Amino acid sequence: MRLALAQINTTVGDLDGNRERILEAIGEAKGAGADLVLLPELAVTGYPPEDLLLRPGFVRAASASLREIAAETHGIVALVGVPHLDTDLRNACAVCADGEVKAIYRKRLLPNYGVFDEDRYFTRARELVLLELGETLIGPTVCEDLWEPGPATDLALAGAQVIANISASPFHLCRDREREEIFATRARESSCIVAFCNAVGGQDELIFDGHSLVLDEEGNVLARAPGFEEALLVVDIEPAETARERPAPPEATVVPIGLPREQSDRIEPVVAPELAELEQMRVALELGLHDYVDKNGFGEIVVSISGGIDSALTAALAVEALGAERVHCVSMPSRFSSPETQRDARLLAESLGTDFRELPIDGVVSAAEAALAESFAGTEAGIAEENLQARVRGLLLMALSNKFGWLVVATGNKSELSVGYATLYGDLAGGFALLKDVFKTDVFRLARHLNERAGKELIPQTIIDRAPSAELRENQLDEDSLPPYSALDRVLEAYVEQDRTAEELSSDGFDPAVVERAVALIDRAEYKRRQAPPGVRLTPKAFGRDRRTPITNRWRG
Amino acid sequence: MRLALAQINTTVGDLDGNRERILEAIGEAKGAGADLVLLPELAVTGYPPEDLLLRPGFVRAASASLREIAAETHGIVALVGVPHLDTDLRNACAVCADGEVKAIYRKRLLPNYGVFDEDRYFTRARELVLLELGETLIGPTVCEDLWEPGPATDLALAGAQVIANISASPFHLCRDREREEIFATRARESSCIVAFCNAVGGQDELIFDGHSLVLDEEGNVLARAPGFEEALLVVDIEPAETARERPAPPEATVVPIGLPREQSDRIEPVVAPELAELEQMRVALELGLHDYVDKNGFGEIVVSISGGIDSALTAALAVEALGAERVHCVSMPSRFSSPETQRDARLLAESLGTDFRELPIDGVVSAAEAALAESFAGTEAGIAEENLQARVRGLLLMALSNKFGWLVVATGNKSELSVGYATLYGDLAGGFALLKDVFKTDVFRLARHLNERAGKELIPQTIIDRAPSAELRENQLDEDSLPPYSALDRVLEAYVEQDRTAEELSSDGFDPAVVERAVALIDRAEYKRRQAPPGVRLTPKAFGRDRRTPITNRWRG
Repeated sequence: MRLALAQINTTVGDLDGNRERILEAIGEAKGAGADLVLLPELAVTGYPPEDLLLRPGFVRAASASLREIAAETHGIVALVGVPHLDTDLRNACAVCADGEVKAIYRKRLLPNYGVFDEDRYFTRARELVLLELGETLIGPTVCEDLWEPGPATDLALAGAQVIANISASPFHLCRDREREEIFATRARESSCIVAFCNAVGGQDELIFDGHSLVLDEEGNVLARAPGFEEALLVVDIEPAETARERPAPPEATVVPIGLPREQSDRIEPVVAPELAELEQMRVALELGLHDYVDKNGFGEIVVSISGGIDSALTAALAVEALGAERVHCVSMPSRFSSPETQRDARLLAESLGTDFRELPIDGVVSAAEAALAESFAGTEAGIAEENLQARVRGLLLMALSNKFGWLVVATGNKSELSVGYATLYGDLAGGFALLKDVFKTDVFRLARHLNERAGKELIPQTIIDRAPSAELRENQLDEDSLPPYSALDRVLEAYVEQDRTAEELSSDGFDPAVVERAVALIDRAEYKRRQAPPGVRLTPKAFGRDRRTPITNRWRG
Repeated sequence: MRLALAQINTTVGDLDGNRERILEAIGEAKGAGADLVLLPELAVTGYPPEDLLLRPGFVRAASASLREIAAETHGIVALVGVPHLDTDLRNACAVCADGEVKAIYRKRLLPNYGVFDEDRYFTRARELVLLELGETLIGPTVCEDLWEPGPATDLALAGAQVIANISASPFHLCRDREREEIFATRARESSCIVAFCNAVGGQDELIFDGHSLVLDEEGNVLARAPGFEEALLVVDIEPAETARERPAPPEATVVPIGLPREQSDRIEPVVAPELAELEQMRVALELGLHDYVDKNGFGEIVVSISGGIDSALTAALAVEALGAERVHCVSMPSRFSSPETQRDARLLAESLGTDFRELPIDGVVSAAEAALAESFAGTEAGIAEENLQARVRGLLLMALSNKFGWLVVATGNKSELSVGYATLYGDLAGGFALLKDVFKTDVFRLARHLNERAGKELIPQTIIDRAPSAELRENQLDEDSLPPYSALDRVLEAYVEQDRTAEELSSDGFDPAVVERAVALIDRAEYKRRQAPPGVRLTPKAFGRDRRTPITNRWRG
């Protein structure tokens, strides 16, 4: 039997575009001689459609789109993810064959943690569906169904030989390895072949990384699709005869479908190599930016480059993602910008080959200070004057954006956003914050990685070597206001991503002074994060839909 | 038997402050001779604590706080809302008496729709608890448990005479009437007295409106606490003997507790009058602003007043909520501001008695235009130049905020935010957007209502009478860019709050041209709303946690 896993990139809400992409993939699979093709979870609507699912008109349109897909499905069986309304709304896998929807499998396990809200939309089901495809029994499942043992075990007891899983499983770093371990366990527990077809592409903050997989009954990888790009993974399988006892076969609907064709010669399946962590980070950031820009209909973007490393990395990634001709770089020096950073900004734009302009901000800052002079009389210069400069930059960037339709890509990193070392409407201004989930220490690692890959100073080495500074006052260094990033980032990771208390962190051996300072800053900065642009989620707990902290909150722990 | 319902205002995360407030309320109830006192849902932590519940240290601290409360509870029984960890995390009602926790009731129905995410945190339970207080059987429940028939019916079958419900039930307009209807039904179905103790106060976007209630077995109101303020509602009840058949008594743990004292003379319960819709809107907005400011530790606020009605209403509500001495008004005229609006801004500040200053923006705008001149050469003035003015105002406001610690209260309304007729980092800049859930037509109604209540032109009549204009170019009127608000608001309500499709709206009789234009604008503006400040939720579907729409979304329907 020949399987095809169509790892496609859909767009939320684009029912027409998604249908065309699905039909194209079904056609390709058929052309490759496949008997069965898997499409991702909710491929018809894109994932996650969020509250579009609460609009009856949207769900009706998705059902109509599925019927059109089924009507054109002949000579192959397609498993297509779609919302399905019966007594309740279901996250469903439609079995399409012979020009119609032969059966509907309804997701049994609904994730409602982390970035997931599936209990908000869907009702869980209990029953199984088994496709009898020629001699082979195949059990469809949807994403989370395969993360815990229940559904796979039930399918195995009912006689399934292949577990087909359609997914939209979001990425975090090295998530592909975690999945392979889980699926290998599932394959061994159930003595079934496991086929996992994942979505690929960016959707707001989420990345779907592909890495579709087929494992044999012992959990060995038979085929693996590449990460972060579309692919059609084709593999021939020979499911084992099921000779096991069935102590209490669960209730299952068996759907017999004739095998469409004779098997042709065996093909050699692809086993794509795994990517190292840093390379995953790079590719995920570029995919996330690319898809946000393209799916939202932007032609070009603009980045404020300061001569510092965050903006340099942002611009370099943007050029790789979109091409230099779609990236505009703007340097906005002030009286506190050093000649070195101004020079490095120019060098960077040259090295990247982007459009470049300089907009000095001192005139605007002075005019604003004049407007405020009476109000500020008798006060000492401080945060207000520093933020003013950042906000003038935000203002000029947004003016360029409004004038030319360029998307502003903000350059702040996760360390800054954690502790609030960023200016609302200033450096936080923009439609997308590319490095939002990248700690400062990883910004340095990534910059070096980009240069190594390029085999040249894509990002000038002086930018990488310079001590970080916001350059909002004379001789300012980040480390005047913050603990060193090497210490800070480790505390941030433990506090934000692992929910350790301040007390536990201190007894874990972190410097208590750093812990106390970081924890107080993190909790106070929630209001800034709430107004920050979306960015690419890379870690198991980004500042987005996976960390829902009240703004009004007196807990300090 | 004497009941007390302690409708208190807690703060999320403030375990120490909440414990003190709870003990104080228990003391007051005891002083009033009550046998049983109800506190709100999750009173120990404040509601909703969101992802604080995922931090093990927070849940441990809440349990410790509950034990301290129980240790001081003598001579009265207290029902206290607290997160409780057994095999899973529960949204629990702790029964405190004789210095200890006598029993834990665990919420059975967990809401996971609208603004609620309880499936993210809690596991639902099945069992009942019955307090045998002297001769009376009392069934504790938590909020949602009473919204559907199941738990009340089960308690009635198990012999309960009183259903005690501890709640944190969020407000929307006239939600108190809806609750009374539901609870009257519940009382009649179960032939039980129903006591509903609700939280009060603002928490980020949510308002808890109090309106605690006691209903007799026929659904008649015995007592009703006022809305939007703390109260201790005390009422004597005489539960009917339960003489009914019990066909299949569900499993229930019966917890006998001696009646602490003899009944004193009967007291006359309060039945607070209901507030009209417009007055509810006013009071909810003032409570929401007051609590956001105070609970987040702000002393004073600043409002940009333009001489238009949105900012006038915002300032007037702020003065009522906080007192004139805590409100700063700033007028920031440009070359496009008419002498009339400038005069009205001054008049308004005088009428309200607030601090007032004028910061003309033309100098800053000209400096910014000069900085952009080369980039903008050869282009026509348009949105970029208009938004620039709004952003200069945002910049100056934020400078005042940074310098003096004033919270910026943004002045945009729901109509503008729906269709994106607002400038990111301009008029949308701020820590709180008071009118975020108030349609423009209601802005006018509220302004007139405030003046009527005050018996004078608190808001100058010329402000109310003038046709709305953003004053960002010569002779600009909102209706040049948007449909008339009277038509637009009705479409917005049907599309946003009732999820009607564009097609359905047209066949509902709305002007198809208005529908098409509004729907396209709404869907495109999601990215702005994502970066907007929080504001007071007044309707069943505000732009906040109750409407979760993807930014990247090609669905237009």
